[in-house]
Amino acid sequence: MTETVVSSASKEVRIGFDRPFVIIGERINPTGRKILAEEMKNGDYSRVESDAIAQVEAGAHMLDVNAGIPLADEPAILARAIELVQSVTDVPISIDSSIVAALESGLAVYQGKALVNSVTGEEERLESVLPLVKKHGAAVVAISNDETGISENPDVRFEVAKKIVERAADHGIPREDVVVDPLVMPIGAINAAGKQVMHIVRRLRDELQVNTTCGASNVSFGLPNRNGINAAFLTMAISSGLTSAITSPLHAETMQAVLGADVMMGHDPDCRHWIAKYREPSADREPRGRRRRRRRGSNGR
Amino acid sequence: MTETVVSSASKEVRIGFDRPFVIIGERINPTGRKILAEEMKNGDYSRVESDAIAQVEAGAHMLDVNAGIPLADEPAILARAIELVQSVTDVPISIDSSIVAALESGLAVYQGKALVNSVTGEEERLESVLPLVKKHGAAVVAISNDETGISENPDVRFEVAKKIVERAADHGIPREDVVVDPLVMPIGAINAAGKQVMHIVRRLRDELQVNTTCGASNVSFGLPNRNGINAAFLTMAISSGLTSAITSPLHAETMQAVLGADVMMGHDPDCRHWIAKYREPSADREPRGRRRRRRRGSNGR
Repeated sequence: MTETVVSSASKEVRIGFDRPFVIIGERINPTGRKILAEEMKNGDYSRVESDAIAQVEAGAHMLDVNAGIPLADEPAILARAIELVQSVTDVPISIDSSIVAALESGLAVYQGKALVNSVTGEEERLESVLPLVKKHGAAVVAISNDETGISENPDVRFEVAKKIVERAADHGIPREDVVVDPLVMPIGAINAAGKQVMHIVRRLRDELQVNTTCGASNVSFGLPNRNGINAAFLTMAISSGLTSAITSPLHAETMQAVLGADVMMGHDPDCRHWIAKYREPSADREPRGRRRRRRRGSNGR
Repeated sequence: MTETVVSSASKEVRIGFDRPFVIIGERINPTGRKILAEEMKNGDYSRVESDAIAQVEAGAHMLDVNAGIPLADEPAILARAIELVQSVTDVPISIDSSIVAALESGLAVYQGKALVNSVTGEEERLESVLPLVKKHGAAVVAISNDETGISENPDVRFEVAKKIVERAADHGIPREDVVVDPLVMPIGAINAAGKQVMHIVRRLRDELQVNTTCGASNVSFGLPNRNGINAAFLTMAISSGLTSAITSPLHAETMQAVLGADVMMGHDPDCRHWIAKYREPSADREPRGRRRRRRRGSNGR
């Protein structure tokens, strides 16, 4: 049984086939969030902190932290954001950058065993990121594309993942510290994307025996009711063997899909987590009268 | 590819591995519905008619009709209910009774090729129901229990299903006219129930090559937020090969789970059905102001 262990200074999280699904909060990412980008660039990290706290309260087991802001000092901003997130929450962090120097400065300040997000199958990336991962004793997200781009054929993507796992081993990084992202295509554009992902996730689990993660919301790009598609995707991917995802715990439908999948997979003994979450909705979300009505109406038939 | 074809006088429905999931509306069933039971017993079928219309409007592809009322003339009531449902809707019907005489009177008035619900693996049931199914050229739901009861071991349930399919063949009923119900246990009581169902559904599809159905809401018995569990169950079961379910299309979460699963399985070309359903919520469900807000809020992140 493959288990990926990551940690903060005080808390350990295990990603594994026989464990509850791990949600990596996606919100701390200035891509497409103009206000957040501007604030981070100007040294205002108040939203980073509140987003960190809100995601953990909503159920995130880990947090992804990205500081990709054009023309900004990404290594410095990423390191500062990580320090602040670690000061207000205790969950492990996925250090997210496409710039090696930023990964390096993030790792330098990080307390615990981080998840480095990410390395691809491109030669130059492999040889710059993997030594860094090894040096810091971190785990790493392996994205299954290489110099030839992203193949539409999931079996080609599987081969790229295999290459990264083998190269990591050459660098002394065990397969349990490589978490593969099989790359999820928008299903509105590629109708077979769903079955492709199930196929590759199952192969990654059964043949390569690695944990997996993905940016779950890509699948619904361009479609209405994205949360509905994301929920269907996560549920099916979990049944195929997906063990974590970078997604938003702030969407109730996403959380429900993940917790429901944990129940169905037998990863929520006696449904304790499910019952705790849905028997007593927290009082600050809606007034008492509505709560009662909803609970009564939530019977199966 | 196994396809089960059922029909009304004017409409054909195909249940199959490569087709959109078939929803069999469960509402016309007096079990646990005191008012409906009383009305049907007294010859008032107005609620039967309105439930039929509402379920078809909500997306049911077929309707289950059950008239199991203690101390009532079930054969006569079932036949009358079927006639009325066929007069107000055009979808095929699942004729649902544990009394052979009621199945017989239902089949006598039915126009089209019905789904008989159900036969078990019990010797006496096999030899009374299968000849009736053959005589009327119907299809039949095969419930995977026998004289020894319902086994908790899904492989034992598989063997019972296999026996029924073989016996049906002896009676001249082809395997595509047998739709197996693998029996879904409440997951609050049996934590492995989810994985068990995935396992048996996959075996029924791959080895026995039959279509499948189930009473989907059993899985969530006794749990809070039953619709959430039902949605997770349906999504996972569909990815394992479940091809139909007897459930309520009136629950928005159930419909969303099924339509989302169709998208993920590649059974909704160009997501046409999904887009039609969620781009323009029907105006009579909620006021315009709420619609706008919800649509804006439904982005993936």
